[in-house]
Amino acid sequence: MKNMLVAQSGGPSAAINATVAGVIDAGISSGEIENVYGALHGIKGVLNEDFVVLNEVCKEPATRDLLSVTPAAALGSCRWKLDDPSKNEEQFQNIINILRKNNIGYFIYTGGNDSMDTVYKLSLYCESHGIHDIKIMGAPKTIDNDLGETDHCPGFGSAAKFIATAFSEIACDSYVYDIPSVTIVEVMGRNAGWLTASAALARTEKRRVPQLIYLCERAFDVDVFEMDVRQALKENMNVIIAVSEGVKDAQGRYVGEETKSGKEDAFGHKYLSGIGKYLEGVVGERIGCKVRSVELNVLQRCAGYMLSNTDITESRNLGAYAAISAIRGESGKMSALKRLDTKDYQVEIELADLSKIANVEKKVPMEWITEDGHDIKEELVDYLRPLIQGEVNVPYENGVPKNFILE
Amino acid sequence: MKNMLVAQSGGPSAAINATVAGVIDAGISSGEIENVYGALHGIKGVLNEDFVVLNEVCKEPATRDLLSVTPAAALGSCRWKLDDPSKNEEQFQNIINILRKNNIGYFIYTGGNDSMDTVYKLSLYCESHGIHDIKIMGAPKTIDNDLGETDHCPGFGSAAKFIATAFSEIACDSYVYDIPSVTIVEVMGRNAGWLTASAALARTEKRRVPQLIYLCERAFDVDVFEMDVRQALKENMNVIIAVSEGVKDAQGRYVGEETKSGKEDAFGHKYLSGIGKYLEGVVGERIGCKVRSVELNVLQRCAGYMLSNTDITESRNLGAYAAISAIRGESGKMSALKRLDTKDYQVEIELADLSKIANVEKKVPMEWITEDGHDIKEELVDYLRPLIQGEVNVPYENGVPKNFILE
Repeated sequence: MKNMLVAQSGGPSAAINATVAGVIDAGISSGEIENVYGALHGIKGVLNEDFVVLNEVCKEPATRDLLSVTPAAALGSCRWKLDDPSKNEEQFQNIINILRKNNIGYFIYTGGNDSMDTVYKLSLYCESHGIHDIKIMGAPKTIDNDLGETDHCPGFGSAAKFIATAFSEIACDSYVYDIPSVTIVEVMGRNAGWLTASAALARTEKRRVPQLIYLCERAFDVDVFEMDVRQALKENMNVIIAVSEGVKDAQGRYVGEETKSGKEDAFGHKYLSGIGKYLEGVVGERIGCKVRSVELNVLQRCAGYMLSNTDITESRNLGAYAAISAIRGESGKMSALKRLDTKDYQVEIELADLSKIANVEKKVPMEWITEDGHDIKEELVDYLRPLIQGEVNVPYENGVPKNFILE
Repeated sequence: MKNMLVAQSGGPSAAINATVAGVIDAGISSGEIENVYGALHGIKGVLNEDFVVLNEVCKEPATRDLLSVTPAAALGSCRWKLDDPSKNEEQFQNIINILRKNNIGYFIYTGGNDSMDTVYKLSLYCESHGIHDIKIMGAPKTIDNDLGETDHCPGFGSAAKFIATAFSEIACDSYVYDIPSVTIVEVMGRNAGWLTASAALARTEKRRVPQLIYLCERAFDVDVFEMDVRQALKENMNVIIAVSEGVKDAQGRYVGEETKSGKEDAFGHKYLSGIGKYLEGVVGERIGCKVRSVELNVLQRCAGYMLSNTDITESRNLGAYAAISAIRGESGKMSALKRLDTKDYQVEIELADLSKIANVEKKVPMEWITEDGHDIKEELVDYLRPLIQGEVNVPYENGVPKNFILE
């Protein structure tokens, strides 16, 4: 019997460990795998032969359940792309040698665009070199939701649920005082506005917040923003605004770039505050009302207490599907979600072609953004809503959520 | 039968609505109250006779349960102190007239130090003017936990639970990469370090984070901080630091004050970034490793999905106790928590003297801070731990926690 290897790559998310749990589930239950190894810190751990035996560490189903609700990346991650195989063939042969030496016949790599590039390059190398004893599969992961060929990405639903909830709580907080106020909330997303759009899921019949939503797909104009805010303040005592960290002007420059990075502090290094702080300045200076900015920061990607059950279930299934497909002989593909054309939300898992995924960013379609540029359309809300449904009761220990931590 | 009036004041917290729910519970079940009114936006709502009938709005026990798990302040709040009665007696007489006009015999005010000052002044006015038909009681509330005469404050336990959890999640996020990194987390607290100390509750046997904790009670020295961080980096790949937003140097100036506010941006207004960003600059410049800062911001006080059951239960009981005490004839006091000297955590509710509470800030005792100044002692952990125990299953609607919103 051969061994299976799994590794995690790219930025942390609340669901990537669920995908690994799914790989372990499938490896154990297949009866065709000797050991499921985990490489520490992604492809770097493969090159260093830094392995743990996951079917031992996570032997108990309860341990795999705990792993699946632990945020970040329990095996560690890396941000590291393989070289061009035409320039550094040795690196690729090295990986193959290490896999063969450890009797690994199946390698599952979870991650986003860059990670799928690794999977793609490695599988092309195998194909072109007649290597058929090692199957290489990708499993998607990115809170940014920007991978092609899959309806949505593991980790996104939980991040979106956190963001919607945070906006709901920030609204409760803002509506406390009866003086006009503006709250600007900066949401992750350099090139894709999916996470920022999720703020709209905070809206209820009683309270329609945020009133303004700016995605990074559309050119941002500070003067138009000022007019939008003035108008919103006429209609609301408390205005709450969602803005992508990566909004750019019509020339493609990050908004406020000069101000944000032009000044040096006492140590001579440049200020690098975000778009939230910048727009806080704009509102304070031009409108003069009470204004504050909130940066959701890393909490939006690693909030293990705010998991979408839909997300965690799908993530685990995608890991299991990638593993089973590899055992069945598939290679060079990624497990992906296909949304069915049914009244109630339903997905199917399928295999997607890596050539269409590696290094491609899927952005929010312009037709899902309102013409005035400061809101999203109902079609986008309909797309997003099912992804945050369902709660996961995570175990607590001493008053704090319990996490799986590798010894 | 007389009416009862309740109002909320000061900054939002996750538990202040539970206290109002307790007041309504007690008002209804006493059988001695005609109506429980809620004044909107604190004492301002009293002066404006801006009342809602809470025993109607929250008639159903399920509605009061929903209110008790809704963050912020459902009745709205204000930051507004009554004038000195010797200078503006009219203001006080005005309030008494409005209460009498509405047949209000009991007024319960929830809030922190400033709010207890309002209760105190008003009760002194009644006493000195022979007004015995109106009983005025305070119920404590502040995430800062800085009220005297009570073991701890409603809202603090839930905020502490959020903070401990956030540190645990940030640790998961930080430990993902195998390169040295420093994460500085800025926690609320201008003058009292209770919230920052709560970060220690994230520590488990497997992972002792944060490694460094700086409370605002102790003078902060940037050079010592640099040495602390260098030492911590020798012992840990990833260093996580908790710091009170209000740390000051030996001269009592906010740390980095000059840098933080000395620069002007393109609009000519001054930068006002926090201590986290400032220390991020210090680490980046002097040590040069990967560094980032996280500001927990308003989420730490209004996270309705991360409630301490201990906190919510106590907060509701404190509201009920204040209401019942007023009906029994007490006035000019605050309901307070007394921790019993038992092996397992137990509290009793008692009445405390407002003269010792109004405008007094209870800080973390210096003997609970380690001599090296960058950690807290076990006695403080033992004090904090019981306050974050127990989870509350909040209701969700459409994937987001449901909140009570006044129509």
